[in-house]
Amino acid sequence: MSNPMLPAGPARIEINEVGPRDGLQIEAALVPTDAKVALVDALSACGFARIEVTSFTSPKAIPALADAQDVMRRIARRPGVIYTALVPNVRGLERALEVGVDELNLVMSCSETHNRANLRMTREQSFAELANILGVAARHRLPANVSLSTAFGCPFDGDVPAEDVLDLARRLVEAGAAGITLCDTTGMAFPTQVASLSAAAQQRFPGTPITIHLHNTRGMALANAIAAWQTGITRFDAAAGGLGGCPFAPGASGNVATEELVHMFDCMGVATGVTLAPLLEVVRGLPALVQRAFSNPLLAAGPRLATHAPPAWLAERFPPA
Amino acid sequence: MSNPMLPAGPARIEINEVGPRDGLQIEAALVPTDAKVALVDALSACGFARIEVTSFTSPKAIPALADAQDVMRRIARRPGVIYTALVPNVRGLERALEVGVDELNLVMSCSETHNRANLRMTREQSFAELANILGVAARHRLPANVSLSTAFGCPFDGDVPAEDVLDLARRLVEAGAAGITLCDTTGMAFPTQVASLSAAAQQRFPGTPITIHLHNTRGMALANAIAAWQTGITRFDAAAGGLGGCPFAPGASGNVATEELVHMFDCMGVATGVTLAPLLEVVRGLPALVQRAFSNPLLAAGPRLATHAPPAWLAERFPPA
Repeated sequence: MSNPMLPAGPARIEINEVGPRDGLQIEAALVPTDAKVALVDALSACGFARIEVTSFTSPKAIPALADAQDVMRRIARRPGVIYTALVPNVRGLERALEVGVDELNLVMSCSETHNRANLRMTREQSFAELANILGVAARHRLPANVSLSTAFGCPFDGDVPAEDVLDLARRLVEAGAAGITLCDTTGMAFPTQVASLSAAAQQRFPGTPITIHLHNTRGMALANAIAAWQTGITRFDAAAGGLGGCPFAPGASGNVATEELVHMFDCMGVATGVTLAPLLEVVRGLPALVQRAFSNPLLAAGPRLATHAPPAWLAERFPPA
Repeated sequence: MSNPMLPAGPARIEINEVGPRDGLQIEAALVPTDAKVALVDALSACGFARIEVTSFTSPKAIPALADAQDVMRRIARRPGVIYTALVPNVRGLERALEVGVDELNLVMSCSETHNRANLRMTREQSFAELANILGVAARHRLPANVSLSTAFGCPFDGDVPAEDVLDLARRLVEAGAAGITLCDTTGMAFPTQVASLSAAAQQRFPGTPITIHLHNTRGMALANAIAAWQTGITRFDAAAGGLGGCPFAPGASGNVATEELVHMFDCMGVATGVTLAPLLEVVRGLPALVQRAFSNPLLAAGPRLATHAPPAWLAERFPPA
């Protein structure tokens, strides 16, 4: 029943910072283009493997990201960082091509009701649209990752069978997806489930990088990250400050906080490429950026070895011998 | 590098609910005795293995728990639940004996500065006091567990060597401790460390139950619980609503929230003995009890399979075929 040690995962992981897109798109405050560019540039300096910069969605659907082309044009692209953007259709892909992105992110849901509610299409309609985009992307030699929402459960339909997720992933890989992200859209994933689905996906699609996208809705985000890592997962989505959420999951908190993910793997000696100190500075600026207060446990407490001065009375009570 | 599945831990765990003691002792609001008794009785109905009811500390030191004897006398003791109380000295033990407790909990720190700040004694003074209590407890055939604070790091001294923790635990086991709790007092523990120390403690003290006491200060509580569980740990401290904290760790949040721990292990099919629904009702009442507002993610979002109604427009847009 007992294992001598925690089974270790890979020595190095990569983080895809999704805050500028997945975080900002749900915020009530309209963040000015300048501030978005400054945010992405500050994140570029932190050492992320990837940054999801924006979404080339219809400005009517997501007014918060209507300036997608401006943002992409104005960010300072740091060598080594892969700048990605979400595109929902070929029109979005064309807008992305005009300004240049390194990689696309496409999205659909594993569950029928969430796909209809979030994308206003049936899953089959979404699949056809994504296959279409993948075809055009291939002609432009642009890698396109597909993010599968509700891979660990749906706020409307409940449990989502792992076979449904894997089958949809298979069809998308066959249609040309360069990578698959398994998204716990509303924080329903739990560790044994994450491990099981992560392992199955890696086994079935050995040539396709699998990314895990976690939300901390029920406190399990970091536990789920450990579970995924133990099965060999090296790619994680995360949003600085835990920004983001899902409009269909009332009361739900957002994405796994990048700083908590980085801090945990730092503690364990697993390389993330990200430097915590500048990231914490970015996080410190987020409430002003999105014009709402939110508490941040790691900022409040500091990294684990940020020690405190002992109480002043201690020296008097216990004088040096 | 990759494991096929999450390494499983034990099929059943036990939870020691420490909210009434570890949680309430740090609250600014003085909770009336009636309300404390009602809290413990409500917790007794949830299925906990153990409840740490109160502390027989000097009323001057912790006025919040000055009614320890009254509380112990008035709670309805449910068969099968072990009612424990903290005692800091023989005087406290005598007060506990007068009203009857099933088990004692003793406390000292693994790091010198935290022991001095928290207990106003050197570690050697504390050890002598605890050995003294253990001797008296043994004469009364009363099991006494020892909780070791700062076992995973000290907010003043930083890293605490695992050998120091294990050596202190050995001396206490030799002095008669019935169990050892490794406490992450200020949320400095991380998963590989928890696994390593948990495994070492179980290996060195095979006849002594090891409990893990986690705080969620840096978001890692549930990840650490998974890590401990994977090494065979079956006993966890937790506080309903995540009550508690440490006066020496500014900004620190409290204990791992019992409801999040229960919910996670429920999801994984690991038996905890605790029923989530009545526990969530207890948690819902906590802000009124301690007279301060605090957000509770699990209450806000609901358990993972608490599904939501789809948007009303969906039926119109996608009429049944």
